Amino acid sequence: MIKIIVDCFGGDHCPQAPVQGALAAMAKNPDLYIMLAGDEAILKKELAGKSYDPARLEIVHAPEVIGCDEKPTDVVRLKRNSSMMKGIILLRDRDDIAGMVSTGSTGALVTGALVRLGRIPGVIRPAFCPLLPTMDGGLVGVCDSGANMTVTPAHLRQFAIMASLYMCNVYGVKNPRTALLNVGKEAEKGDETRQEAYKLLQETASLNFVGNMESRDLLSGSYDVVVADGFSGNVLIKTTEGTAIELLKKLKKEIYSRWIYKLGALLMKPMFGSLKEFMNYQNYGGSVLLGTSKVVVKGHGSSKAVAVEKCIEQAYRMEVSGLSTQIEAEIAKYEHYEE
Amino acid sequence: MIKIIVDCFGGDHCPQAPVQGALAAMAKNPDLYIMLAGDEAILKKELAGKSYDPARLEIVHAPEVIGCDEKPTDVVRLKRNSSMMKGIILLRDRDDIAGMVSTGSTGALVTGALVRLGRIPGVIRPAFCPLLPTMDGGLVGVCDSGANMTVTPAHLRQFAIMASLYMCNVYGVKNPRTALLNVGKEAEKGDETRQEAYKLLQETASLNFVGNMESRDLLSGSYDVVVADGFSGNVLIKTTEGTAIELLKKLKKEIYSRWIYKLGALLMKPMFGSLKEFMNYQNYGGSVLLGTSKVVVKGHGSSKAVAVEKCIEQAYRMEVSGLSTQIEAEIAKYEHYEE
Repeated sequence: MIKIIVDCFGGDHCPQAPVQGALAAMAKNPDLYIMLAGDEAILKKELAGKSYDPARLEIVHAPEVIGCDEKPTDVVRLKRNSSMMKGIILLRDRDDIAGMVSTGSTGALVTGALVRLGRIPGVIRPAFCPLLPTMDGGLVGVCDSGANMTVTPAHLRQFAIMASLYMCNVYGVKNPRTALLNVGKEAEKGDETRQEAYKLLQETASLNFVGNMESRDLLSGSYDVVVADGFSGNVLIKTTEGTAIELLKKLKKEIYSRWIYKLGALLMKPMFGSLKEFMNYQNYGGSVLLGTSKVVVKGHGSSKAVAVEKCIEQAYRMEVSGLSTQIEAEIAKYEHYEE
Repeated sequence: MIKIIVDCFGGDHCPQAPVQGALAAMAKNPDLYIMLAGDEAILKKELAGKSYDPARLEIVHAPEVIGCDEKPTDVVRLKRNSSMMKGIILLRDRDDIAGMVSTGSTGALVTGALVRLGRIPGVIRPAFCPLLPTMDGGLVGVCDSGANMTVTPAHLRQFAIMASLYMCNVYGVKNPRTALLNVGKEAEKGDETRQEAYKLLQETASLNFVGNMESRDLLSGSYDVVVADGFSGNVLIKTTEGTAIELLKKLKKEIYSRWIYKLGALLMKPMFGSLKEFMNYQNYGGSVLLGTSKVVVKGHGSSKAVAVEKCIEQAYRMEVSGLSTQIEAEIAKYEHYEE
């Protein structure tokens, strides 16, 4: 049995989306065991009348609610009976639980995971790795994208190793093409951290390092993994998302401005539908936190059932593929200095 | 007379685009005097048969060519007779010349300008400020976006002051809404540099500081100026450009996949045309370098005549509006520490 905790409170569509997503994932994976964390009475009501295997589902009662404006450190310290924190503590304390999925506050989840879970031996800093769809139908992982505001070259190398193994194990990408986010292709571009990281990445035999990537090429399909400090990685993914959303909005507005455009758009309706689906991040699962001792997947706050299901699938595949063990083995090959 | 040097070699459409752009700008501005820098014989041939006021145009003979792979520092040191370097040196040496426009290598232009031109008194670090179109029809300036890989809070404050004055003077934006690029809205987000910069920006009375901006909101129309370190600012603008280009490509590919989509697209042809124009950076002028003692505008390498004309207009308006004097006066109000 692969046991995964699903934090049922924190996202926009809670608890419906997590509960439905969990049941859907259970139906597909006969060895998946789900622990729903949250207010027991509400969860029981949500489960009522639904069909599932009760031998593979349990409720972890966690009645406390996390407010929107609460500081991550306060949540970790004070909200031990919230679904998120109770989940993390259970994950830490019980060897039989493999991972956790949450659509709650990113800050609280990262802080909680870093403080309570600890790291895979050898990992200096865990890092976030969300996925974006590329124009040729593939996926690209951006690691880090928010957990570490400042990084060293050694951190960047570890991000590359972890994200490479992740893309290979969970998405079947052989020899992932791994690049360093930079302001130009040449090895001497960027600050000292980037220049030094370039050399380290080049020396790392187990990586398929393909050089620097300029941010305009993220969606080109030429890369499987991009490593960055958490600040610029965050800018990279949020700008991509924001530009796509704003352009679609603009397109819609233009279409409504003339009846002939509306007619044209009507003929192209299936195309616009598939374009919208293509750019819907919910179809690509959540951001995984790489390097913590247990698997943690963060779904978008607005995740619906299908998105939560994808996050659970990710956590499941990370565990089944033995990702943590491989990360530990690979990291051990290189000297890494704690800062 | 406002004298502006136009570097006629270095871009993809040289010397046609710079020459035609210069003549168009001259036709519109009767007090604009143009100095075309480049190989005299080629430029004379390009000018032959064209109509312009010869009393307001001269050629600066600069026969040396800069290669694609030459290092910026080598260009500055060794290529003194290239159109770019000869232009910069003239700009430095002659008080009667106001500024320069180039579509050549960014690295060489920035290095050359920083090394040879010097700075406006009080300015610690000059910075690049390109413009992007927002979805409500406005413009947003991103400063810095490539000249400084690492910055201090004091640098960021200066970028804000310079870019604010630029948007006000050259684009008539009253009280520009100025934001700090960050990973979240809250004041405590980001690294120490960002946290400290937030406080400094808040204390700066002459700025209309509206807080942190998340990168997904760049095109929303809620901001006139965004300040950033050159690395993440570069990621911000290039990701926006890249995402827009990739999405348009995808749209086109989809349209060609079925005849009914082609028919629909035919009805919407003017709309797609205007959308493409809207996203064409050439329509918004070049990146200005703010803080150097003389005006420098960098046009995109692929600039056509109309784009070069816009760059010349920018340089002209920066000079006419007395931007440098205002930057000097405003910067002097605040203590800034050289690093």
